[in-house]
Amino acid sequence: MIYFDNAATSFPKSKNVINAISEAMRCCGNSGRSGHKYALKAAETVYNCRKKMASLFNTRPECVIFTSSATEALNIAIKGTNNPGGVTLVSSMEHNSVMRPLNTLRRNGQTVLRQFLVDVKHDHITCENFSTVSNSATNVVITHASNVCGRILPVRKLRSLCNDETVFILDASQTAGHLKIDITELGVDIICVPAHKGLCGPMGVGALIINPYSDIVVEPLIEGGTGTNSKSFEMPEYYPERLEAGTANVCGIAGLNASLDELEFSSKESELFKYLLSGMRDMVNITLHGAPEEGNESDHVPVLLFNKEGYDSEILCDEMSKKGFALRAGFHCAPNAHITLGTSEIGGVRLSLGKGNTRREIDRFLNVISEI
Amino acid sequence: MIYFDNAATSFPKSKNVINAISEAMRCCGNSGRSGHKYALKAAETVYNCRKKMASLFNTRPECVIFTSSATEALNIAIKGTNNPGGVTLVSSMEHNSVMRPLNTLRRNGQTVLRQFLVDVKHDHITCENFSTVSNSATNVVITHASNVCGRILPVRKLRSLCNDETVFILDASQTAGHLKIDITELGVDIICVPAHKGLCGPMGVGALIINPYSDIVVEPLIEGGTGTNSKSFEMPEYYPERLEAGTANVCGIAGLNASLDELEFSSKESELFKYLLSGMRDMVNITLHGAPEEGNESDHVPVLLFNKEGYDSEILCDEMSKKGFALRAGFHCAPNAHITLGTSEIGGVRLSLGKGNTRREIDRFLNVISEI
Repeated sequence: MIYFDNAATSFPKSKNVINAISEAMRCCGNSGRSGHKYALKAAETVYNCRKKMASLFNTRPECVIFTSSATEALNIAIKGTNNPGGVTLVSSMEHNSVMRPLNTLRRNGQTVLRQFLVDVKHDHITCENFSTVSNSATNVVITHASNVCGRILPVRKLRSLCNDETVFILDASQTAGHLKIDITELGVDIICVPAHKGLCGPMGVGALIINPYSDIVVEPLIEGGTGTNSKSFEMPEYYPERLEAGTANVCGIAGLNASLDELEFSSKESELFKYLLSGMRDMVNITLHGAPEEGNESDHVPVLLFNKEGYDSEILCDEMSKKGFALRAGFHCAPNAHITLGTSEIGGVRLSLGKGNTRREIDRFLNVISEI
Repeated sequence: MIYFDNAATSFPKSKNVINAISEAMRCCGNSGRSGHKYALKAAETVYNCRKKMASLFNTRPECVIFTSSATEALNIAIKGTNNPGGVTLVSSMEHNSVMRPLNTLRRNGQTVLRQFLVDVKHDHITCENFSTVSNSATNVVITHASNVCGRILPVRKLRSLCNDETVFILDASQTAGHLKIDITELGVDIICVPAHKGLCGPMGVGALIINPYSDIVVEPLIEGGTGTNSKSFEMPEYYPERLEAGTANVCGIAGLNASLDELEFSSKESELFKYLLSGMRDMVNITLHGAPEEGNESDHVPVLLFNKEGYDSEILCDEMSKKGFALRAGFHCAPNAHITLGTSEIGGVRLSLGKGNTRREIDRFLNVISEI
């Protein structure tokens, strides 16, 4: 089986990641819950990972909040910074992990929800569309790159078009581990990431990263024991404890801790992506949706949406699965992205590359997809 | 190191649990996110675990909602069933995973919070105390057994003292895996459990169990992609998808799936607990808090709170740690339980037994604690 579904989760996971989880299972207690050696080993593992994440995103360790997923991180960020009476601005490429929590706030009268159209070819048009509505926005929540077509949004430019007071939340589910992300340089307030996609860690871990220079206050969504301030019925005022209630996923965090040691930002994936695109662009009966033109590949993370004439996307995906290719069809939990790309009726097949893929795998794919 | 901190997390984890996680790391994709073999393997693993959990608690598979912790499950249960204008009744033994979310609802005017006193010696007094306030309660949230002293609450009796319409949530963090729990027989609406305590699975997984005969509606706390109904900005109406947004902790759930196969309800732990108590009761300079009298040990899960004359609990715990015993001192994220037990100023040292402990370990402990 050739795995081209890395936008869902990276695969395979490395031996070091698997071993780190097993090791933590063998020697870790509950982090922050006592002072004995097993609890301390857990606390040390979690803190080491927190420091590495802080370094990766250029923030302070206490500004790294571990969650169970990017989805949980986004829910905390969105609901924990919303003030009734505000206006939240989203792009036309958002995932349901952004749209569903915001839709609930909208339905309950807690925010007005506005959307700007992303132009997948031209950043300046995206920025123009943004700037016509950005003045009214108290909150902005956007994806760093589309999970459907891989298009990277011009985040730094968009941030510069906002008031300083605008709360700016970035969903980096598809970019963390693929692009170098410096939260200070980008100037956004919060970045939400999963451990298990580009960072190549395990499922079950995510993080909410807070800009060390932001004075944003994030209210907790989940409250409970923190192992600190036991006598208070209020969550602690300070991060990360304020937003981390209950037992941490110590073994999952140990896996992320190991995967961060292996993280490399090479040009390998983008070269593979170019190679894939060069094979797909001129293929008869294949339509690419939102894919970069030649020379513009660096505007994308390595995610490609396509359809083949005469095939329903689900059926094509099933056929390709039988022939040994792991892809994902349908709407990818991002209906507005499909509207933006003109595929809201038919959906599409998504091919997403990861660090383990090779040219030979792409050659095999190109052969099969053209002959099917 | 002798591990007596099983109320924080069970230890050691079994080889089969560790192997199941490694196996899932090697062969699972993202559950419910595509139809290829890795995604299907993940979905199968999650569903197998869901079925086993349903069988264990006597509910239907779709009434088992996987969460990242019992704390998350309690937050969903408490916030997702609260109606403004109601009255929530809690016991005097609750953990901060119950008190902190409820305190936020109270502070925001979304519930009135009342408490009934638990009598750790006599169930009938606990029930009397409960019945004086239970008529006014629209919601009840109680612990099944105290995480501080192990006392089991008379849940079925308490449930029978409520109106049928009262939403009844049970925090089974300290009982799941120790006691057989039948949600239908108990008649409660929701039970919240961690995977990593009595069920001996990994940290990072919990579950919210819904009574199959309850008509309760639980609103989502975390919203996002579910791999279903992609085009809708509303969470699905049906369980478990309604309450499970984002990527599941597939490997953690695989670990729980393996630990459930090993779960046994034997008398071993309660016999060890009796043995421990028989050694501690008459010890000079040792005070037990909320411990059962001889013959009443079955009113408790195997958790014991104590102090030694002349010792601060934290210092005693550190001393015992140096001598090779993993215990937990302080207030255990449950300040009201310490008020109930009369230890709100001094705290206490908690010893909690698990399936791996032996008589010999208890003998060593009794020797050291008496001589220290």
